[in-house]
Amino acid sequence: MHPRNLEEIQRLYTQAHFVQHIGLRLLNVGEGWCETAVDIQAHHQQQDGFIHAGVQATMADHSAGTAAATLIKPGQYVLTVEFKINLLRPAQGELLRCRAEVLKPGRSLCVVESVVFAEKIFSKATVTLAVLDR
Amino acid sequence: MHPRNLEEIQRLYTQAHFVQHIGLRLLNVGEGWCETAVDIQAHHQQQDGFIHAGVQATMADHSAGTAAATLIKPGQYVLTVEFKINLLRPAQGELLRCRAEVLKPGRSLCVVESVVFAEKIFSKATVTLAVLDR
Amino acid sequence: MHPRNLEEIQRLYTQAHFVQHIGLRLLNVGEGWCETAVDIQAHHQQQDGFIHAGVQATMADHSAGTAAATLIKPGQYVLTVEFKINLLRPAQGELLRCRAEVLKPGRSLCVVESVVFAEKIFSKATVTLAVLDR
Amino acid sequence: MHPRNLEEIQRLYTQAHFVQHIGLRLLNVGEGWCETAVDIQAHHQQQDGFIHAGVQATMADHSAGTAAATLIKPGQYVLTVEFKINLLRPAQGELLRCRAEVLKPGRSLCVVESVVFAEKIFSKATVTLAVLDR
Repeated sequence: MHPRNLEEIQRLYTQAHFVQHIGLRLLNVGEGWCETAVDIQAHHQQQDGFIHAGVQATMADHSAGTAAATLIKPGQYVLTVEFKINLLRPAQGELLRCRAEVLKPGRSLCVVESVVFAEKIFSKATVTLAVLDR
Repeated sequence: MHPRNLEEIQRLYTQAHFVQHIGLRLLNVGEGWCETAVDIQAHHQQQDGFIHAGVQATMADHSAGTAAATLIKPGQYVLTVEFKINLLRPAQGELLRCRAEVLKPGRSLCVVESVVFAEKIFSKATVTLAVLDR
Repeated sequence: MHPRNLEEIQRLYTQAHFVQHIGLRLLNVGEGWCETAVDIQAHHQQQDGFIHAGVQATMADHSAGTAAATLIKPGQYVLTVEFKINLLRPAQGELLRCRAEVLKPGRSLCVVESVVFAEKIFSKATVTLAVLDR
Repeated sequence: MHPRNLEEIQRLYTQAHFVQHIGLRLLNVGEGWCETAVDIQAHHQQQDGFIHAGVQATMADHSAGTAAATLIKPGQYVLTVEFKINLLRPAQGELLRCRAEVLKPGRSLCVVESVVFAEKIFSKATVTLAVLDR
């Protein structure tokens, strides 16, 4: 991976305030994939004590953006065009994890799959991102 | 709307910790629809200063759940099965709003559309929810 | 609409063999929208006598492409990137219709909504298309 | 697999007229998965000679229904609630194939992933189906 890509990826975790507000952190990253995690706290819950779909959607989307960013050229950035997420079962646990993998890289569009899980898979998303020049 | 539905709906805003963490509040609600808002602050931003897709997705999903909850029977609750959101343009503004409307109510499934906007439409989501008995 | 767009749109119905195989025809078209129809026959049915989801998906997608094609420049064409369709109820009827409307035009991407209906709405799709140069 | 499931699955290919109109045939099936194929002919093409997204969507949806039908109880049937498909690249080839695998079985809902491919992957879909009693 180009060092400038690593710079861009670090920026996704140090300068994205919402990601810090949620507590999303990067565990590991390689060409076309990344792994992220959130230490679950009370403020991540919905009304019945499960982890809110919005937390899972944010993880799935931001991790997808990270995976896509490993494949772009210096000077480019990615922006989510759309995503679809299936919530497969109520989500609970102390450490929520996500693995995002690029399904199809492209010059102008990149499609990434993200799985959100703890001991079981809680949700799976497909994310389409635009690859743009600054 | 049955008074117990109103109770259930208030619960969606007082007991869903993540919704309070984000600052999502209910503006208005009727049978099959609702309007919500978030006062945008620095912690809602992604790395380029726009409102994070995760904030929009959370609004779209939770507002959809609220709209669906206006049509269920006392003793029932709703749970998101899946949603798809299109991010139409970079989102900016001081007050982010969302309007959710039920497209198709049902005994076991409910489909809701949510629009997230300020002066312009930023995103539109289609949300499928399961209607369940406690 | 530019006359060359009309040429391109007619091509979508005279040169797309699958569209003719299904019997999809253009009823009406304007800037950013179109209406199409299929006369339902036995070969459109799934195993329980309802109109197959694949017929509805094809209508929704192709009509979305038509609506998007009304807004592009001469020399450009559109290609579906992804779509999501909700099948709201079992579909039946003699004349299946579709109305597609551009939700967000763009230089490189166009988002279109398609509704498939007879007396009632059967399905609704959101379609993302790439705008490309020949 | 219960013999009655096999009967139900055969019915999906002998009594679904649209599936025969398209030429979709079942290659192989097991618990939670299936493989299908279409011999590509001129009538499957869109206006530029590629395989129409509607053909791919029909394959992805119907194969998903088949995979889900391997896991239901005798007397039950499945009906597509919604699906989302990403068209990853223009599709061409003589034999179009699809593999569908259940991602999450359930008593009332089943989520299936379908990949449509020839030498390369052309599209990938996520399909949500309702499990219903006759």
